[in-house]
Amino acid sequence: MDYLGESLKRHAAWRGKLEIRPKMPLAGKEDLALAYTPGVAAPCLEIQKDIRKSFELTGRWNTVAVVTDGSAVLGLGDIGPEAGMPVMEGKCALFKAFGGVDAVPLCVRTQNVDEIVRTVALLAGSFGGINLEDIAAPRCFEIEEKLQAAVEIPVFHDDQHGTAVTALAAVLNALKITGKKLETAGIVIAGAGAAGTATALLLAAMGAKDLVVCDRTGALHPGRAGLNRWKARLAALNTTGKTGNLAEALVGADLFIGVSAPGTVSADMVKTMAEKPVIFAMANPTPEIFPDEAIAAGAAVAGTGRSDFPNQINNVLAFPGIFRGALDARAGRITEKMKIAAALALAGLVDEQHLANGVILPEPFDTRVAPTVAAAVADAVAGATAGAVQESSS
Amino acid sequence: MDYLGESLKRHAAWRGKLEIRPKMPLAGKEDLALAYTPGVAAPCLEIQKDIRKSFELTGRWNTVAVVTDGSAVLGLGDIGPEAGMPVMEGKCALFKAFGGVDAVPLCVRTQNVDEIVRTVALLAGSFGGINLEDIAAPRCFEIEEKLQAAVEIPVFHDDQHGTAVTALAAVLNALKITGKKLETAGIVIAGAGAAGTATALLLAAMGAKDLVVCDRTGALHPGRAGLNRWKARLAALNTTGKTGNLAEALVGADLFIGVSAPGTVSADMVKTMAEKPVIFAMANPTPEIFPDEAIAAGAAVAGTGRSDFPNQINNVLAFPGIFRGALDARAGRITEKMKIAAALALAGLVDEQHLANGVILPEPFDTRVAPTVAAAVADAVAGATAGAVQESSS
Repeated sequence: MDYLGESLKRHAAWRGKLEIRPKMPLAGKEDLALAYTPGVAAPCLEIQKDIRKSFELTGRWNTVAVVTDGSAVLGLGDIGPEAGMPVMEGKCALFKAFGGVDAVPLCVRTQNVDEIVRTVALLAGSFGGINLEDIAAPRCFEIEEKLQAAVEIPVFHDDQHGTAVTALAAVLNALKITGKKLETAGIVIAGAGAAGTATALLLAAMGAKDLVVCDRTGALHPGRAGLNRWKARLAALNTTGKTGNLAEALVGADLFIGVSAPGTVSADMVKTMAEKPVIFAMANPTPEIFPDEAIAAGAAVAGTGRSDFPNQINNVLAFPGIFRGALDARAGRITEKMKIAAALALAGLVDEQHLANGVILPEPFDTRVAPTVAAAVADAVAGATAGAVQESSS
Repeated sequence: MDYLGESLKRHAAWRGKLEIRPKMPLAGKEDLALAYTPGVAAPCLEIQKDIRKSFELTGRWNTVAVVTDGSAVLGLGDIGPEAGMPVMEGKCALFKAFGGVDAVPLCVRTQNVDEIVRTVALLAGSFGGINLEDIAAPRCFEIEEKLQAAVEIPVFHDDQHGTAVTALAAVLNALKITGKKLETAGIVIAGAGAAGTATALLLAAMGAKDLVVCDRTGALHPGRAGLNRWKARLAALNTTGKTGNLAEALVGADLFIGVSAPGTVSADMVKTMAEKPVIFAMANPTPEIFPDEAIAAGAAVAGTGRSDFPNQINNVLAFPGIFRGALDARAGRITEKMKIAAALALAGLVDEQHLANGVILPEPFDTRVAPTVAAAVADAVAGATAGAVQESSS
């Protein structure tokens, strides 16, 4: 199917993918008197007395804002806030379909970090959580950090953490298949933007030690000059001191995670990796290397971001359950511990038989996914899964 | 029924009065590919080329933000943004039920005029219109003015203009009953806040000449010192030069509109008015004078804001149709001409027989109301009803 042409036609027919509807009948004066004036004064006064009641007497407990500035939409780049709205509406539709979350698409007409933070922070009383979406790096890091410091509800940049959680689950299962350990596996990440940064940090939090992130210039390492503070943080993870370009970094590596650009990995590069290499080539729509090519070059496991190949590493496996769990537990933020719990739960949904067939993730439409992830995330908030994993803020 | 007690129970059971749902099925990979990636890139790129396409390819054409700072919620006063949310949700429910409009409740955590304006203006690309709600005077005037200057979509403060449109319709029909003319009728408005100000301005725009607005201190007139620019505008309408308190202003008056405080008008005051006086005592929940008392004192027509008396003068008769019409016509603002068209359409829904029985407005659940008002408003945008009424910006 010509998805682009057909999607444009459908969007013109839909004229918006969301509908906002009352949950109760409004058929007569009594309905009006209870849902609106004069009755509505009662819940208003309860919330005035105790703002926390806004989570019990309004939809706040179940409502998330999906916010973009339109600066990094899909693979399309900086197309502007209004042009980002079809994606935001789609995301909100997925929030409801997969997580039961009421999500409001908002685009912001500024790319100034402090203006975005201030704008969203002023609206925080309307929501139970904030999902940042398609905001370019490195501004996305600063916006998330400052916004989380300004509000009492969770702030989650899905391009970072949704990807990181799903990738971590994929890594954990791929390592089961290849019989390797996270602590000793050599991992190379191509791409130091939102997804690459968060994935590297989450892998490190989970225990990965041999970790190199490459940007367009090559490996980030402590000796490299001119790094911003976000890239410096990634360089500090490179404890083995690898330098050079991506091809050099891949020599002897066990696992490749690409969140970079089409066609940057060749079959020859795969052949230089360790035994049973794992290739996650997640650039969209064209991966760093196509999975059949990677397998032909010796990869033991391959995954992409595409729905038309096996092992789709897709955020939709993560964000609906993560927010569902965070909202249910009324978490104030989404911590590394919660993200790790989500990844472990996601990985745990793939049984031995599927692993034996090279399947590392459940399907997006597997109805177990969101509830299982949500329960694990809520448990992590409650401290029920504490212990081995040390708490740290996201 | 104990509306307050029952409403609190219902709100605790509803946990939010709105639901945000996808309009299309999301049951399989193909649905996902069309509503989300990769297909969604097509509408995104169309909007990037021409931002106006956001009204065709997203829900913007039908979506209104309902925005409060919580500073003047119902009759409860400054109860804070979160405490205002049950009212905003109720308003959004009415928007959908009566006007088919998708409305998003937003509360803003600031009462600073410029911060509210900037916050909402930055979000304007997400919406087809802005409904300001329950913001205290005189800040509401400045916010509306500045916000409308900053955005290309209509900004409408319902506490002002919804009330004004409904009151104008009520006035027009009451004058039919009493056989008087708007141009020569003596009109006294008690209350110089949001509703009183907008009602006075709209009556003047429609042709009322003998118009006095009283605040707590008494009649606003050109000689009164210390008026802010909003009250000075009302004082300028007082061309007959009336001074003194409300009781003095009412002597010989034909029509009283109260949007002030409970019990401020006595039967004796009604008796000093002209023949066949009209009393609209709209203070909520306790009116300036109860309608049975006004009728007993000689009023020819009486109305209140309450649903348990005849002639309820309620914004719900106005705002759903006004926004429906403005959205359908893709108006950039809501002008005096559009408001007058709405009032005329609303007044026109009451036939001779009902007028003969003292009925001046249709019932809120009369299904003719919103479509009729919407069509008149859209016609006014198209210029179809131009002519006698001169265009001026709101």
